[in-house]
This record gives sequence, C-alpha cells and structure tokens, in this order.
Amino acid sequence: MKKELMLELLNTKQYKQLHTLLMENNAVDIAYLLQQIEIGDCAIAFRLLSKKKAAQVFSNMDIQTQSQLVELFSEKELESLIENQYMDDLVDLIEELPANLVTRLLKHVDENQRQVINQLLSYPKDSAGTIMTTEFLSLKKETQLEDALKYIKQNGNHCKSIYTSYVCQDKKLIGIVSTKDILLNDENKSIEEIMKEDFQYVYTHTDQEEVVNIFRKYDLVVLPVLDDEKMLVGIVTVDDVMDVMVDETSEDISKMAAVEPHDKSYFETSVFEHAKHRIIWLLVLMFSATLTGSIITRYENAFQAVPLLVSFIPMLMDTGGNCGSQSSTLIIRGIALNEIRFKEIFKVMFKEFRIALVVGVILAIANGLRIYVMYQDINIAFVIALSLIVTVILSKLIGCILPLVANQIGLDPAIMASPLITTIVDTCSILVYFNIAVHIFNL
Amino acid sequence: MKKELMLELLNTKQYKQLHTLLMENNAVDIAYLLQQIEIGDCAIAFRLLSKKKAAQVFSNMDIQTQSQLVELFSEKELESLIENQYMDDLVDLIEELPANLVTRLLKHVDENQRQVINQLLSYPKDSAGTIMTTEFLSLKKETQLEDALKYIKQNGNHCKSIYTSYVCQDKKLIGIVSTKDILLNDENKSIEEIMKEDFQYVYTHTDQEEVVNIFRKYDLVVLPVLDDEKMLVGIVTVDDVMDVMVDETSEDISKMAAVEPHDKSYFETSVFEHAKHRIIWLLVLMFSATLTGSIITRYENAFQAVPLLVSFIPMLMDTGGNCGSQSSTLIIRGIALNEIRFKEIFKVMFKEFRIALVVGVILAIANGLRIYVMYQDINIAFVIALSLIVTVILSKLIGCILPLVANQIGLDPAIMASPLITTIVDTCSILVYFNIAVHIFNL
Repeated sequence: MKKELMLELLNTKQYKQLHTLLMENNAVDIAYLLQQIEIGDCAIAFRLLSKKKAAQVFSNMDIQTQSQLVELFSEKELESLIENQYMDDLVDLIEELPANLVTRLLKHVDENQRQVINQLLSYPKDSAGTIMTTEFLSLKKETQLEDALKYIKQNGNHCKSIYTSYVCQDKKLIGIVSTKDILLNDENKSIEEIMKEDFQYVYTHTDQEEVVNIFRKYDLVVLPVLDDEKMLVGIVTVDDVMDVMVDETSEDISKMAAVEPHDKSYFETSVFEHAKHRIIWLLVLMFSATLTGSIITRYENAFQAVPLLVSFIPMLMDTGGNCGSQSSTLIIRGIALNEIRFKEIFKVMFKEFRIALVVGVILAIANGLRIYVMYQDINIAFVIALSLIVTVILSKLIGCILPLVANQIGLDPAIMASPLITTIVDTCSILVYFNIAVHIFNL
Repeated sequence: MKKELMLELLNTKQYKQLHTLLMENNAVDIAYLLQQIEIGDCAIAFRLLSKKKAAQVFSNMDIQTQSQLVELFSEKELESLIENQYMDDLVDLIEELPANLVTRLLKHVDENQRQVINQLLSYPKDSAGTIMTTEFLSLKKETQLEDALKYIKQNGNHCKSIYTSYVCQDKKLIGIVSTKDILLNDENKSIEEIMKEDFQYVYTHTDQEEVVNIFRKYDLVVLPVLDDEKMLVGIVTVDDVMDVMVDETSEDISKMAAVEPHDKSYFETSVFEHAKHRIIWLLVLMFSATLTGSIITRYENAFQAVPLLVSFIPMLMDTGGNCGSQSSTLIIRGIALNEIRFKEIFKVMFKEFRIALVVGVILAIANGLRIYVMYQDINIAFVIALSLIVTVILSKLIGCILPLVANQIGLDPAIMASPLITTIVDTCSILVYFNIAVHIFNL
C-alpha cells in the first residue's frame, strides 16, 4: 500500500476501504507507513485494525510513535493492547516509555503479569532473560499425541511459537517435542516415547552472545531458558536472536573504530551524543600519539643531518598501522566466532610471524627499489627496507597478541583494533626506524 | 558424550553400546566428535548411525572429513547418503569435493535430481538460488484443512520445514499458509479461506544480503524463492540465513581492515594465502603514503627552522586518521543495515560537520593548553590547535562522503574504511599543518 493512497482514504474518510486494505497488508509494512504520517491520522488508522493486528503493528513501531500513541489511547485501548502483546515486547516498551506513561500502562496489568514483568526487568543487561518471552506450550510426558495436538490447537493462539512444546515434570524441563514429530508419529503414542531428552538450553543469566552461538551451532529456531533451579521460565525465538546478532556486530564494529557503542541508529543519535561517544578515545589516542612525537624530538640531530628521513615517517607509520590492523581485526573476528582461543596464542604468533616475513620482504623490496631508483642512495634504501621488515613483524605480532590477551583478562578484544594498535605500532616503528638510521648513517 | 568414551567403546568393539550412545546425541555434536578422530574409526562409528541420522551428521562435518568418508564409502552407502541429503547440502558438497569423488557421487543421482543439481549450480554466486533448498510442501487452494493436514503428515518427512506450505496454481505461487493456521482453524475450511496472499518472496537471482534484510525486517523463519516466471522453485530457511549473516559480516570486517575477504577460517588459511590476501592493499597504501612523504619534503625549510614541528606529525596524522575512521565506520555500518542512503548525503555531511566542530574544538583546547604549558610557545600551540580543528573537520567529511559515494557508484563501501581513509586523511592533515605553520611562523 502506498502512503499517498492511505492519506487519501484518511482525508476522504473512506474508513471501511482503508480497513480492508490495512488488514490485507503485513504488520511490519503498516507500522512503517503509520510512523511516517501525522500522529492524529496514525491513531485513526490504527483504530481501524483488529485487536490482534493492532498489537502486531504496535510492536513493530519505533518508540517515538509508540509513546505518542499510548498518550492518545483510552484506558480501554491500553487494556486491549496489553492483553495482545507478548511479554517480551511489553517489557521492552516499559523500559523505553517515559515514566508517566508507564504508570498508566501498569494500571492495566494484573498481579500475575506484574510479577512476570518485574522478573523480566530484573535480569542482567544482555542476558538470555532479557530477550526471552514467557509464552510457550508445555506438555506432560504421559499425554497421548492425539491429546497433545488438541492441547496445541486450544492453547496455541497466544504463543509466539507453537512448533516446539516443552515437557515438564514438577516444573523442571525434562524433554522437548516438536509439532512435526507429533504430526508425523502415530497418534496413540505418548509424548514420552517421542520427546527428545538431549536438547540445548540456556539459563536466564546466560550472555546473549552465547545464546547466538548456540542457535548458530545447532541451527535452532527456538531455545528454552531455565532459571537456576532448572525450571523452565521462557523461550528465546530466532527472530530476536537475529536482532541480537546485528546489535552485537554493530557494537563490535563501533568499538573497533574507537566509538563507544550504543543502541540508537545514526540519525537517531544527536550531534552531542555522537561527539560524546567519540571524544574519549580521540583524547586518549591523541595524547598517546604525543609519545611518538617526543621520541622523534630525541632524533632531531638525525633528521637535521639527513632531512629526507622525515619524509618516510608517514609511509612507515601507515604501513605499520595497516599491518597491525589487518592482524588484530582477523583475530578479533576469530575470537568473536569462537574460532581462535587464548591457548592457541603461540600458534597464532608463529603464523603471524611467517605471514609478516613474507609480506615484509615484499614491501621492503618494492619500496627499497623505488627509493634506490629515485634517490640513487643505497643507504637510505637499505634503512627503509630493513625498517619495513622489522616494523611489519612487530606490528603483526602486536596486532595478534593484544586482542588475545585482552580477551583472556576479561576485556573486550574489540578495543584492541585499528586505532589503539596503530598508536602503539607508531611508537615502535619510529623507534625502529631512527635506531636503524642512526646506525647506518653513523649519526 | 566424551571423545575418550567413544574411543574406548571403539577400541573394545562395544558397537551396540556406542550405537545407543550415538543415537541419543545431537547430530551437530556427533559430527564435531567424529571429525576429531582417525578416519578409520570415524567410518566405523558413522556406520553405526541410522540412515537419517547419518545424513544429518554428515552434513554437519567439515569438508575434509566429508571427502575422506566419501572415499571410503561403498556404492550402496553413497546411494543412501544422497537419498537422505537435502538438495542444498548436496550441492554444497558437490561444489567442494574433488572431481573424481563428484563423478562417483553423481552416478547415484537420478535424472530428476541431476536437473535440480545443475539448476542449483547455475545460480550466480551469493544469490538466493545458491542458499535455497528445493524440498517444500505445496498445497492446492481448494484443499480442505483436514486433508491438508493429512498431506503434511504424509509428505513432511523429507522436508526441512513443515511449518509453512505453499499454495500454487499452474506452478505459480499464489499464497502461503502456516501449519499454525491449519491447526488452529476449523478443519472444514479450505486453504483458500485462510491462506495469506500478501507474502514476502525473492527471486533466485536476488542477492543474499537482500534476503537477510527481508528475514530481519519481517521476522521470518522461511522465505519462498521464485524464478523469473514467478514459479516457486525453492525456499530459504532461517538457519542458512544466519550463516549468511555471519559470512557477510566477516567479509565486511575483512574489507574494512584492508584484507581481501575469503571463506576459510583463520587457521584453515595457509601462511601464503594469508599473505596474498593482505599484500595488495598494503602495497597500494604504502605507495599512496609516499605522497604524504613527498609533501613533507617540500616543507624541508620549515622543519629545518623549527625542528619541533616534526614531532607533532604523528599526533596529527593519527588523530585525523582516527576521526576519519570513526565516521567512515559508522556510515559503512549504517549503509549495510539500510539505515543511511545516498540521498541523505547532505544531511550526513552537515551532521558530521557539527560533530567535527565539537570534537575538534575540545581536542584543540586540550592539546593547545598542554603544548603551551610544556613549551611556553603560544605560536606553536596556536598552530597545533588550528591544525587539529581543520584536520578533524576534513577527516570527518572525507570519512562520511567516500563510503556513500562508493556505494552509489556500485563499489563496496567497506573498502572506504580505516586504512584507505587514513592514507587520504594523512595527506590532507600534513598539507593543512605545514600551510598553517608556514603562515604563522612566516617561514
């Protein structure tokens, strides 16, 4: 449906036709359309939706539109909204809404729901507890498949996923059974006969990155979440896991560019917030780089005698920085994907050393030849070539060691990316360069 | 199951017990265990599995173990393997196996399958056609729900997903229906009454990144794939989409660190392959950086007169590089997530300009004060402060413009990340710096 058509139907009050059109469209698309139009119109169109569809559309809207709608809603509408929202979406909303609207919203929540909400709000940031939902199907192991199917038909309506049911005994999870197996097996069998007792699960406090890894490893679409007493309290579904994957990656990429990670998109973030997220690292790195500067001043005599030396500083610094970044980036990614572990540090170092040797020698020959041809000075060509080889080796070693060590001591390896590595490598390359120059030229 | 236990059972030939244990365990875990042991033992254990489980385990193994097993398999075993593999896994296998093994494998493929395989192999790299599978359930619109359920029960066994069925007319896809809706609706209704006619789909040639975006936007677990005549030819499932997400991200991150992307993991890649993936960009960037060097030589008189000027080169270059990287990284990520478009380039530039002003002034004040206190030289403090502000503004503008322009002209924006931006920004910052210095000091 086009925005223009919707606006026209709204302006000419052809609500019946608009209702038909809205009901035919996908909730995601409607949400996207509605949040682009004026809030009064948005509320009118929203009220044309069925209760269930309204809840779906609402949960796909951005928080600005959600807040404005909640403000406009009657008490009855709020009640219906809460009734039709999944618990995880409701908790997300409560976390984001302004306090006065939360108070209004919570008036319509019954004691049972309130307990669940409080519980969900209490889980640590980025844990499985915060991304799970509490609506799932649970079965008894004695139940016959025929009855199980009836149960699913009766109770499936308000569940996010009806394709996996959980078998509990004294609230403890003892097996899982897929609707596929219920459908494809003889209906006289019992759940116990077909349930899987070897299943994956996580705890409410499990980190969401770990949840992502389990989904990926076992190709899951849903995963049960247990509390510390191994009681089943919720399930995580694959759509939420995909969002976590994207968020975690964005977070890593931000950190790797020396930007403090945050949840909002580029345009949602204000100029001052952007500046705040960038300035700390810039200050730290700027002052660290003055160390390299003060090393240079120590070699004032050298570049006063051979001024040409100064002109190779940017090339050496950049090449060192790039070599270090290449290594650190690959290692950081390998750590994130569970492919590289700290115990393999010597294997990694040996590999990077050999790569650095190959790369360094090629760069040294290429640049050494160029300099010899351009300046006809074998000494300077030799100084640059040798400095390149040593710098490349040092950079690649620093680039692979620091992320692994950071990870081992509980820091995020992503901070050991390009910017920090470059600054550290700069100091090394300048030291290497002037030391070699001083020796070769006897300065 | 522990590796030691498995080896002990193998050595003592307690095959019955091993069979029971293997059948209780998850196919992913068994695959991981089996590829760690000697290939003879691996084959023995593999043969203890049921045909269906064997196929699952096989598709989770790495290509080395798969090749070795195929080599050991009898013709009958190959036949059974092919029978129980999904088409997409089979095609992946054919693409990776050495030619002689492929020939053996293809002997057991019937004419029908051969056509499907050839078709699947013909799709362009990274398209929806290469990640889809061809086993899905299709229904007729006249079918009653009761019969539809029977059909699913009878035909679901060899389908990757039985929770969505596709309604086709003359092979054209006209609707989709979820098993949830079949279960929860009155069994006397027809498919036509409950099917969704507004559904998402892609074409075989759709880029896999676009597929990922559709899955994320609409929270899908499965998506139909049509050919150019809108006939349904396959489905993409969410587990494969998650793998694509990870691969695409790794590819972007590699490119952003000036490393040519490739499919293998860090340890799977040899030293020479690693070197090959890194050397091209290093050479390009190294020679580009000599431009900055040659600019410096033009100002030889300046730093001969005020040698202190040289010592601020690293700090300025690094700060410029870091500022540019911050901007380019955020923009590249925004483009990848569809949050930033080329038409918004002026909006982005204005935002970055204001951020740069805030950040630049803070850095200038901090470093200007430090320099004044340390050297008691107001001129040099002023030169550095002014250079910082101009450099930061230039860097952030370059950092946001280049990825957007690259994307617009069909290049991957990820190449406009830290390394290339740093090299470009270096030249600018050196030019700005010495120009300001020459004016202030009247050199």
